[in-house]
Amino acid sequence: MRKAVTQPTLDTVIVRFGGELWIKKPWTRRTYERRLIDNMKHTLKRHEIPFREIIRKHGRLYLKTNQPIEASSKLARVFGIASVSPAQQTTPKLNDIIRTSLSLADQTLQPGNSFAIKCRRVGTQPYTSADICREVGRQILEKFGKKRNLTVNLKHPDVTLGVEIREEDAFIYASVIGGAGGMPLGTQPRLVGLLSGGLDSAVACWLTMKRGAPTVPVYFDNTPFTDEATTKRAIEVAKVLFDWATGFSRRMYIVPHGQNLAEFLEKCPHRFTCLLCKRIMYRVAEKIAEMTKAEGIVTGEAIGEQASQTIPNLRVLNQAAQKYPIHRPLLGFDKAETERIARKIGTYEPSSLKAKGCTAAPKKPATMAKLHEIMVAEEKLNIQQMVEASVQQLQTLNL
Amino acid sequence: MRKAVTQPTLDTVIVRFGGELWIKKPWTRRTYERRLIDNMKHTLKRHEIPFREIIRKHGRLYLKTNQPIEASSKLARVFGIASVSPAQQTTPKLNDIIRTSLSLADQTLQPGNSFAIKCRRVGTQPYTSADICREVGRQILEKFGKKRNLTVNLKHPDVTLGVEIREEDAFIYASVIGGAGGMPLGTQPRLVGLLSGGLDSAVACWLTMKRGAPTVPVYFDNTPFTDEATTKRAIEVAKVLFDWATGFSRRMYIVPHGQNLAEFLEKCPHRFTCLLCKRIMYRVAEKIAEMTKAEGIVTGEAIGEQASQTIPNLRVLNQAAQKYPIHRPLLGFDKAETERIARKIGTYEPSSLKAKGCTAAPKKPATMAKLHEIMVAEEKLNIQQMVEASVQQLQTLNL
Repeated sequence: MRKAVTQPTLDTVIVRFGGELWIKKPWTRRTYERRLIDNMKHTLKRHEIPFREIIRKHGRLYLKTNQPIEASSKLARVFGIASVSPAQQTTPKLNDIIRTSLSLADQTLQPGNSFAIKCRRVGTQPYTSADICREVGRQILEKFGKKRNLTVNLKHPDVTLGVEIREEDAFIYASVIGGAGGMPLGTQPRLVGLLSGGLDSAVACWLTMKRGAPTVPVYFDNTPFTDEATTKRAIEVAKVLFDWATGFSRRMYIVPHGQNLAEFLEKCPHRFTCLLCKRIMYRVAEKIAEMTKAEGIVTGEAIGEQASQTIPNLRVLNQAAQKYPIHRPLLGFDKAETERIARKIGTYEPSSLKAKGCTAAPKKPATMAKLHEIMVAEEKLNIQQMVEASVQQLQTLNL
Repeated sequence: MRKAVTQPTLDTVIVRFGGELWIKKPWTRRTYERRLIDNMKHTLKRHEIPFREIIRKHGRLYLKTNQPIEASSKLARVFGIASVSPAQQTTPKLNDIIRTSLSLADQTLQPGNSFAIKCRRVGTQPYTSADICREVGRQILEKFGKKRNLTVNLKHPDVTLGVEIREEDAFIYASVIGGAGGMPLGTQPRLVGLLSGGLDSAVACWLTMKRGAPTVPVYFDNTPFTDEATTKRAIEVAKVLFDWATGFSRRMYIVPHGQNLAEFLEKCPHRFTCLLCKRIMYRVAEKIAEMTKAEGIVTGEAIGEQASQTIPNLRVLNQAAQKYPIHRPLLGFDKAETERIARKIGTYEPSSLKAKGCTAAPKKPATMAKLHEIMVAEEKLNIQQMVEASVQQLQTLNL
């Protein structure tokens, strides 16, 4: 009996878009699709996965490759993709669908498994989707049911066999791998991301990347108020972020910032140090945004997470950025939620590398600073000169 | 055999804080705890759930009540609570713990269930946590194991019986109900939230509330470019949000905005209408923030979700708000993620009520507006007068 079933040759990856793409106007959608295809090609090339073509059809992309499993796992990390399925292509003839489904079921269904058949159809065929589900299900039970102790479970099956019929083609698949979601990288202009290397800033940058904006990481090096391990941590985190942006620049900026901190400590009330520090970071980031033609600044701030991140303090901070918006994607996140994303995207591990906290941070930081107090403190500094000196000493890393 | 087991009388709710509270300084933590206790009391009072006291001990709150099930379900919706468990209090004597555990197991374990015992201990007892797990587990199996076909499953049990020992007290519970998380409402200053009544703005306001900031909803009424149903929808959504803020103001502001839209349509390029509309909304919101002593403005914008929400357009929008930060907690969210939260918090249904889209919106909105173009368009308007007229016509609803 089992001899009749031929070995399946998975030859395709079905690529599904996020739902949001469908509410875009046709012109925007085509631009987004083209960008997505480009990003997919870069990713496959980087991982040396050969493919024959990417076909755009019926609101899906179909990647033709003889390594669909490997390709699927890499494409699942391309922004703009909702999900992928390694699949086998066949014709929409009932016999071909059944034969291919049986062959995939043979490979996939383990003893004791429950299964379901799902069918989606575009075009005119001499059968309904329900016909396919019934017939494929029946034949699987007939061929493997007893031998493998299989059961049908439509609600929570162990394996769902998918049949996707698209006019002249049909695709059979047994798994749906969740993708990164979001929008294709490059469909929004560049942003500058303040990356400390800690959990929050990494997730914040990833979130703006997810929504399509290439985000250039900028690290402020607090040496001698921190150690080299902290810089190394930031670099490792940046590398993980760049792996989500294949085809885009892997440039990171490092700003020497210790001298600025020393000046705050010398000349200003210590409880303002963190606010003064962040305000100058925003100003330097604005200069880098200008240089890199970016359109905004991303930070990992969440309301109330740290003393510098109370709502009154965020207001004081904002006032320092005059030309560019400060984007804070983690604003409403709990720490546990940020951690969950960090684990998913791979920054949790490098962000947890040993790093010395900033020794310039005060024991009792101001939680409700008044803008005028900060302005008075800043009058004792030559802010403009400090910003310019920081920008002049900017280091560039290509990772 | 079963006669020996007395009926349990659940008499307590164990209230667990979010992990973030623990990294706060003691003074901040106490303030937050006091605020949380206040918010809990208001919530219980509103739902007419009687209670005797709330005890703060060993990093938990213990609510003493004879309605612990009802109280748990209401407290799970109070910000700052990570989880709750209806529980029965007993002494830390081994016999009392076993007797109470057996009694709760008797009530909870269904035929065929798998179970596990979890024990946490503070203080010095003549037994270890492992002793408790072993002994309670053994006696449960002995008493009910055969009769109910019970099995032990430490990894994925159907029921986990929790034993929490705190020096002179012990608490036994059989369920952990996830809470809202976040920080106690009122630990951050007020914000003004632009609430359209659609999915996004409601979730955005909820997220800033979750982080502790009472968020005052402001609705812009686009009549005659929309219908009354749209206003009603916003009011229904605001009511759901207020239900998350028991003990706080239920005031909502409605701004007549149709006249403003009419002016844009008459005097400015139509492709800028949405940007001009939002910029004036920000300005009016700034006035309301001043009036209500709020410290910022919340919007439901997500990068690239609509034409007005591209990164260049967000930059153009930001420039209109000179005094207050624009907080956009959904910045990095996909629509599907926003929807998931909306369903969880109860705004999905009212946000899905029938509402007419704004008929002033152009067919081809600008996606990459230049600030100077918008400024030129605004020169044809008397912006200040429009803002003042809007504020003067402000309506207040107490819901």
